[in-house]
Amino acid sequence: MNRIVVIGGGNVAASLVPALGDRVVQVYSRTHAHAEELAPGRATDSLDSVTADADVYIITLVDDAVAPTAQRLARLNPGALWVHTSGSVPIEALDPLGPRRGVVYPLQTFSRGRRRDFADIPIFIEGDDPAVGLLARSLSRRVLEADSARRRRLHIAAVFGCNFVNHLWAIADRLLGDDGMSFDLLEPLLRETLDKAVETGPRSGQTGPARRGDTRIMESHKRMLPPELADLYSRLSESIIKMYRQ
Amino acid sequence: MNRIVVIGGGNVAASLVPALGDRVVQVYSRTHAHAEELAPGRATDSLDSVTADADVYIITLVDDAVAPTAQRLARLNPGALWVHTSGSVPIEALDPLGPRRGVVYPLQTFSRGRRRDFADIPIFIEGDDPAVGLLARSLSRRVLEADSARRRRLHIAAVFGCNFVNHLWAIADRLLGDDGMSFDLLEPLLRETLDKAVETGPRSGQTGPARRGDTRIMESHKRMLPPELADLYSRLSESIIKMYRQ
Repeated sequence: MNRIVVIGGGNVAASLVPALGDRVVQVYSRTHAHAEELAPGRATDSLDSVTADADVYIITLVDDAVAPTAQRLARLNPGALWVHTSGSVPIEALDPLGPRRGVVYPLQTFSRGRRRDFADIPIFIEGDDPAVGLLARSLSRRVLEADSARRRRLHIAAVFGCNFVNHLWAIADRLLGDDGMSFDLLEPLLRETLDKAVETGPRSGQTGPARRGDTRIMESHKRMLPPELADLYSRLSESIIKMYRQ
Repeated sequence: MNRIVVIGGGNVAASLVPALGDRVVQVYSRTHAHAEELAPGRATDSLDSVTADADVYIITLVDDAVAPTAQRLARLNPGALWVHTSGSVPIEALDPLGPRRGVVYPLQTFSRGRRRDFADIPIFIEGDDPAVGLLARSLSRRVLEADSARRRRLHIAAVFGCNFVNHLWAIADRLLGDDGMSFDLLEPLLRETLDKAVETGPRSGQTGPARRGDTRIMESHKRMLPPELADLYSRLSESIIKMYRQ
């Protein structure tokens, strides 16, 4: 567990490598500068140069690259622990690499230039090898088990809670921009809404015209919106009304 | 400006009265205990007992109560400044009270038991009287002008960015709960998504299957969802695809 190779130099690696500290003996990235930036002097841009002398290999590549890379590195180090960090890729993608394989899936969105503290990020693990859990717990205080089916459900929840939410913020941003106003005017409101959702649960904190059943305001809002946004407004309002009718 | 009466003892008043400090000479609420809690010894539950001896009256009642209350208090103090705090009520609702009237609309969601710091809340003002702006700036560093039409557009943006967003969190909460998981597992992801949206704008930070055009994952997600959520998933995904196609 003390000699770790990170395969991939993208957004996940950019937060993972600093969290692993001096356990990282090598970082592979197709773009040499990305690997070098994360682990100066320990970078490679050739899969042929990945060291066979490590205890753990962590694959942080994009989903579609995991299985082909596993095929490619099949004979490198069959006694090591091999894990990937993807929410969507089944553990079986790692089968060619050896019997000790697992998934260490951090539930977070990672971006270049925004290093995240891993300690608070929930990590979902899969794998029989006890080293999978040890690795995860060396990174985060919140480690839970999740097989492929559960990771898929987590992903759907994250799409609603994060991707779709961000899209609604982009719509709000556009509506404000049309009136010469800036998105950050909403910031205190959004932070308070999130704080409240986390503290008391989003269901009990629901407010707004649909929750109150205020059809007069809903109709006046729809008249002010372009057709595609008016349609989305209706759909979401109906979904709110339905959730609280039950 | 030094003797202020607050009409209403609800959620807005609960944050506003402490922010106004010792300028508050009286708080009216239909529920005496609510007013007394906010301003001990300065409470009344009778509109007939509202003092005529004040410089400013701030009406924080629910939307539908503003106009009737303005009629009711019409002859109380026509020389004072009268304002309401609603995003939806036109300034004209205050006409019966006298010529000095305005709107001081804080863009925030208020809840009993969660006192908000007014200094960071954007306040949108309307009204010719310079005292309206002075009052707003004594509460917050961010004061902007907004007539009824702009307040309505702000409200629509807030419905998308806050009410609808909270609903999507309630859906995510339900999906997690069906699998025995807790909503707070999403908290680091949601906070990071919000931080990123505020720092770089939500449009550029959009991620997820719809943004990538990953139809394989979108179809597999929809198959796992109950029909009404699958439909909402499709609508929101289409809306994302459309925004980035342009």
